[in-house]
Amino acid sequence: MTYSDDVLGRARVGETPELKAYYERLAGHEAGALWTVANEIEPWYPQPKSVPTHWSYADLRPLVLESLDLVKADDAGRRVVMLVNPGRKDISAAVGMLYTGLQVMGPGESMTAHRHQAAALRFVVEGQGAWTVVDGQKLKVGPRDFAITPNWTWHEHGNESDDAPVIWQDGLDIPLVNAHDAGFYEVHPNHYQERGQVVNSSLLTYGAGELRPYGFADGWTKPYSPLFAYPWEQAYPALLNAARATDGSPYDGVILEYSNPLTGGSVMPTLGAHLQMLRPGEATQAHRHTGSVIYNVAKGSGHSVIAGRRFDWTEGDIFCVPSWAWHEHANASAGDDAVLFSFNDFPVMRSLAFWREEAYLDNDGHQPTN
Amino acid sequence: MTYSDDVLGRARVGETPELKAYYERLAGHEAGALWTVANEIEPWYPQPKSVPTHWSYADLRPLVLESLDLVKADDAGRRVVMLVNPGRKDISAAVGMLYTGLQVMGPGESMTAHRHQAAALRFVVEGQGAWTVVDGQKLKVGPRDFAITPNWTWHEHGNESDDAPVIWQDGLDIPLVNAHDAGFYEVHPNHYQERGQVVNSSLLTYGAGELRPYGFADGWTKPYSPLFAYPWEQAYPALLNAARATDGSPYDGVILEYSNPLTGGSVMPTLGAHLQMLRPGEATQAHRHTGSVIYNVAKGSGHSVIAGRRFDWTEGDIFCVPSWAWHEHANASAGDDAVLFSFNDFPVMRSLAFWREEAYLDNDGHQPTN
Amino acid sequence: MTYSDDVLGRARVGETPELKAYYERLAGHEAGALWTVANEIEPWYPQPKSVPTHWSYADLRPLVLESLDLVKADDAGRRVVMLVNPGRKDISAAVGMLYTGLQVMGPGESMTAHRHQAAALRFVVEGQGAWTVVDGQKLKVGPRDFAITPNWTWHEHGNESDDAPVIWQDGLDIPLVNAHDAGFYEVHPNHYQERGQVVNSSLLTYGAGELRPYGFADGWTKPYSPLFAYPWEQAYPALLNAARATDGSPYDGVILEYSNPLTGGSVMPTLGAHLQMLRPGEATQAHRHTGSVIYNVAKGSGHSVIAGRRFDWTEGDIFCVPSWAWHEHANASAGDDAVLFSFNDFPVMRSLAFWREEAYLDNDGHQPTN
Amino acid sequence: MTYSDDVLGRARVGETPELKAYYERLAGHEAGALWTVANEIEPWYPQPKSVPTHWSYADLRPLVLESLDLVKADDAGRRVVMLVNPGRKDISAAVGMLYTGLQVMGPGESMTAHRHQAAALRFVVEGQGAWTVVDGQKLKVGPRDFAITPNWTWHEHGNESDDAPVIWQDGLDIPLVNAHDAGFYEVHPNHYQERGQVVNSSLLTYGAGELRPYGFADGWTKPYSPLFAYPWEQAYPALLNAARATDGSPYDGVILEYSNPLTGGSVMPTLGAHLQMLRPGEATQAHRHTGSVIYNVAKGSGHSVIAGRRFDWTEGDIFCVPSWAWHEHANASAGDDAVLFSFNDFPVMRSLAFWREEAYLDNDGHQPTN
Repeated sequence: MTYSDDVLGRARVGETPELKAYYERLAGHEAGALWTVANEIEPWYPQPKSVPTHWSYADLRPLVLESLDLVKADDAGRRVVMLVNPGRKDISAAVGMLYTGLQVMGPGESMTAHRHQAAALRFVVEGQGAWTVVDGQKLKVGPRDFAITPNWTWHEHGNESDDAPVIWQDGLDIPLVNAHDAGFYEVHPNHYQERGQVVNSSLLTYGAGELRPYGFADGWTKPYSPLFAYPWEQAYPALLNAARATDGSPYDGVILEYSNPLTGGSVMPTLGAHLQMLRPGEATQAHRHTGSVIYNVAKGSGHSVIAGRRFDWTEGDIFCVPSWAWHEHANASAGDDAVLFSFNDFPVMRSLAFWREEAYLDNDGHQPTN
Repeated sequence: MTYSDDVLGRARVGETPELKAYYERLAGHEAGALWTVANEIEPWYPQPKSVPTHWSYADLRPLVLESLDLVKADDAGRRVVMLVNPGRKDISAAVGMLYTGLQVMGPGESMTAHRHQAAALRFVVEGQGAWTVVDGQKLKVGPRDFAITPNWTWHEHGNESDDAPVIWQDGLDIPLVNAHDAGFYEVHPNHYQERGQVVNSSLLTYGAGELRPYGFADGWTKPYSPLFAYPWEQAYPALLNAARATDGSPYDGVILEYSNPLTGGSVMPTLGAHLQMLRPGEATQAHRHTGSVIYNVAKGSGHSVIAGRRFDWTEGDIFCVPSWAWHEHANASAGDDAVLFSFNDFPVMRSLAFWREEAYLDNDGHQPTN
Repeated sequence: MTYSDDVLGRARVGETPELKAYYERLAGHEAGALWTVANEIEPWYPQPKSVPTHWSYADLRPLVLESLDLVKADDAGRRVVMLVNPGRKDISAAVGMLYTGLQVMGPGESMTAHRHQAAALRFVVEGQGAWTVVDGQKLKVGPRDFAITPNWTWHEHGNESDDAPVIWQDGLDIPLVNAHDAGFYEVHPNHYQERGQVVNSSLLTYGAGELRPYGFADGWTKPYSPLFAYPWEQAYPALLNAARATDGSPYDGVILEYSNPLTGGSVMPTLGAHLQMLRPGEATQAHRHTGSVIYNVAKGSGHSVIAGRRFDWTEGDIFCVPSWAWHEHANASAGDDAVLFSFNDFPVMRSLAFWREEAYLDNDGHQPTN
Repeated sequence: MTYSDDVLGRARVGETPELKAYYERLAGHEAGALWTVANEIEPWYPQPKSVPTHWSYADLRPLVLESLDLVKADDAGRRVVMLVNPGRKDISAAVGMLYTGLQVMGPGESMTAHRHQAAALRFVVEGQGAWTVVDGQKLKVGPRDFAITPNWTWHEHGNESDDAPVIWQDGLDIPLVNAHDAGFYEVHPNHYQERGQVVNSSLLTYGAGELRPYGFADGWTKPYSPLFAYPWEQAYPALLNAARATDGSPYDGVILEYSNPLTGGSVMPTLGAHLQMLRPGEATQAHRHTGSVIYNVAKGSGHSVIAGRRFDWTEGDIFCVPSWAWHEHANASAGDDAVLFSFNDFPVMRSLAFWREEAYLDNDGHQPTN
């Protein structure tokens, strides 16, 4: 299909001196002529400024660790190397309106508490001692565990290891919040929260998603999951189980969504998160959809083709798929599975009725690569 | 509080010859005078015909096993000893509009397939070889496992053990369906269903309730849980976990609801099911609510006080609590936990806005017993 | 289709002395053998005890008026001639688990306030002075107006006319509430409610259903409509409008549901209400469904065929359709429309997943009549 | 409350040569240090680029009419003077991510059909002959009528008047759609749609919001209202009625939301619309909230104070309130009511859990003006 703007139904007004004068008069009244911008602001299909981008963990890790000595955590607020899409430097986004970064905490280090309108999530990349306190609940998280910090919950983090740093990936919707003129921020009046007695209490209470508390812990009316931590030790077996019972998706392999056990919906109203397995030798077909995605390679290695470009990836690497970009994934190993963690703005796409999806039909579903 | 019908706002019309004649004329037109029945049909509070009842497994078990020789499964349809409330013999209900029974299947035995409007659930009491095929999906269930057969799903059961019978408790809403003039029944045209390849596929797919399938197995629009089996090996640890994180309910101890992982709601629109733990030495306080409950003692022993009567129970025993009856539970052991499985019509109470609940405030929450 | 119980999948156990003894032993333990009742309690299709019944207003009206002299309103509680289905005398139901009656109030008469778990609705048949106070809100209702008294709302009624009685039809779910052991009743401690200043305030606030209050009157969380009165002067034009834009239903003509403007759902969780127009000369096709319906002829005359029996009706007449009975309606006039008001338990059928519907396919959709 | 970034919990890292070099190395890997932008992208409260702006209809009207001669409708696509916030020229927004403009159609003029992902709404300012065809349904709209063109519905407009132009205000979420990389556009393959027979059919079918179609027109599953037109002749009486029954909101007077009669929710998932009355002499108190609003003065005159600036307005004027700006309204007349139409992105604020609201407590709720 070709898209020409020189058709009936698109703006096709030429420039004349009269019009130019008219436009100037309009501008004097904080007004303009729609037809001068119509084709640009109503494109045939999405025109993201974000480009497909791959961040190598091997490259970033030394830089991230270097920051331990360069800045004090208390001065930085949080010691984070953020990943910035070449097309979105103006808003510090990794793709679309999603922010991501690698946060590092040295042994024994801890942060002060704050909260913000932006929703946050964490995927632990390395290190054993990470903890976070979310609205008074202490969570301990290890490698490949997933945790959430819903919007406006108090939170503070730390690393109780004696000898090794923790690195986790942060995912937030900061650019989304700002685009909607809805950002708020607060530092905790006491710098630190009171903490409940029981570590990982939401995991103990809600972690068996198919059995939920009754007659206590009721009345949860918040718009996000009451379960704050989703350990790898539950998530990976769930993937293996699903792989025994289903073929999965042609585009994503065996893919599960971390979900709110009280609603079956996404973990937070603005951010969703998935864990997907590419079985040994599996290469998925391409599709595209509205909504942006940021991946973290949890296990194994392989490559993805995104908008016709091939990106090879291995454990710890991060890459992104912009809205409406064709994408497909392949596991490099014939013997081991590969697992991708990802997070996205799909809940927003669904709430606003912006979701659209399309399969790549040519060439057995595989894009030509340049 | 005393309730007298001799007050303004209640019907207080005496009998006169004139009125008697009037009533007869009304009856000739399929009519009557409301005030002759008003106080009866609009009681001050619920007047269930069901009475608190306890069924001893020690008593019932030999009778149940005896049926193996007395009737052929194919002749019986299902070989079930049903438990009938003394006040509800007219509708074969165990309490309220809930039906329950003990079904027995001999080694190697299997049934033909049928479906009905009534929703069914199973709680396995003894035996290792039980299976059921629900809408083409084979489930294997062992002692203390819970499984559902939602309304109008095809189902057939069997026991693949070589040497021992299976006994499970059936719970159905048959009287409820009949009261609503909504009963349908069908025998399978081929007597047996086609079966999928994977045993317990819904458990593999949906059994980690906090991670749900994405991009496949989507589009589940049925009004019941896509997860058909809830094994004890998941449920009991969930109880233990919850007990570490919470005090539970003052009326029920640590209590979880088996839930639909896609909605967080009850497993079926007419039947809910719970698993609750009474910690060593725990004696709960009394409360009452609308809705009827049937209990099966999954583990341990203790007693319940229901409407002022004490019922002692031990593993395998079944007992019921009628609507609006005060009830409280106590674990007899100071060292071991006791676990009660139960099912109820609470989803109906909630859908119809009939739910009401009240705590027993006197005497530290404990009823006097007769 | 024929339904025989002498097939595999139905209970087919004969009587033997051994079995008889067995049944007696079971009975001694509050138990029984399912197969002795299975075919009865699991019928092939609904077996309502209710029968199609027609109540002539011409017959009933004098009887209803007679009660004005026979009993004082305060003694009767409410002065109501209830309509009782020949098959449901045990529970005072008009059909299924629905109650209905004709309530009469003399000029200047008023009642004391009470509330009950049962939900009530009113459809005014004759008289200009009717009022009701529902949870403190005074409603004035005239002929063919529809009003609701949701469950547990305080209510008291009266007739402020100088010279003529009011007769309205009451519809309640009393038998449904009782079947669920959920009935409560309370007389108002002061006998009469405090009343708000503005008559019909919910109509003023919510009566334009497509524009709802914002920023005030918010936070309505009750499970029923905040709009308590639906006047004929709005409802009838809505029918006429719909008739211009649509062909309506083949089974019901142009039919609208009185709805909760905040949800689009039924007015109350247990009772729905419809208004339908049979255009001049229109005869609908037959269908059947689960759920029971009670009709009041609001305008015109015609007949309905219900389960093969023809019932002629004219203004003020009441008739019922039991669950799963084939039914079709015909307008007797070639020049005027006929309008039927009706109420039903469809919301219950939907909530409990009991709804089922079927078109009558033979004979151009028309039943043979006996 | 004062907001200083020089506190624990905010980024406070100074510039050093070492850090500068580090930042450069990060930039080489499409990365950056969060602390260099943290305070800016996580503000204490919303920092909209939009400023309160008022557009005088007296000023704009001649400019809008001038365009009739300057450009042909077919060349312009649509002949619209858009209103552009001084702070949002980059995205052609009037406020936040909302677009608005004044569209003019000459007598007898009509447009070709297209559709787009952006949702649109219309509020007619002047002219009698306006029509629009939305997904095949012809709507006629006059002054002060409100109509919607939900996302991805085909639409084409025209003016069937003989002698006078139509001017209506368009409201769209174009900038919102673009920010989410979700824009699609299509011209109709035949340039014009097939049209249904009945004009304003959705109004006839759904226009009595408290009575909804049953058994036909069912199965509406789209995420927007099935009612496409909301005439002034229904809306204004609804306001007058509400004013009799309620005091309204302290911040907005008597305010109603145009709503989806099937859900009680907003008309479309991204745009809400209100109609509010300031009673004679009424001056509301100030509040602020997240979410942006564009007003059109439907009737009367008065002023609003927005973020401390006073804007006087009269019929036809348009003005905007950015997110989190204090605002209050006053009717200039002691004898007549004033009515404001407005549309907003509140549905987005709610879906994404971004809604927050605050009353202005000082000075009896009134801002000082500069």
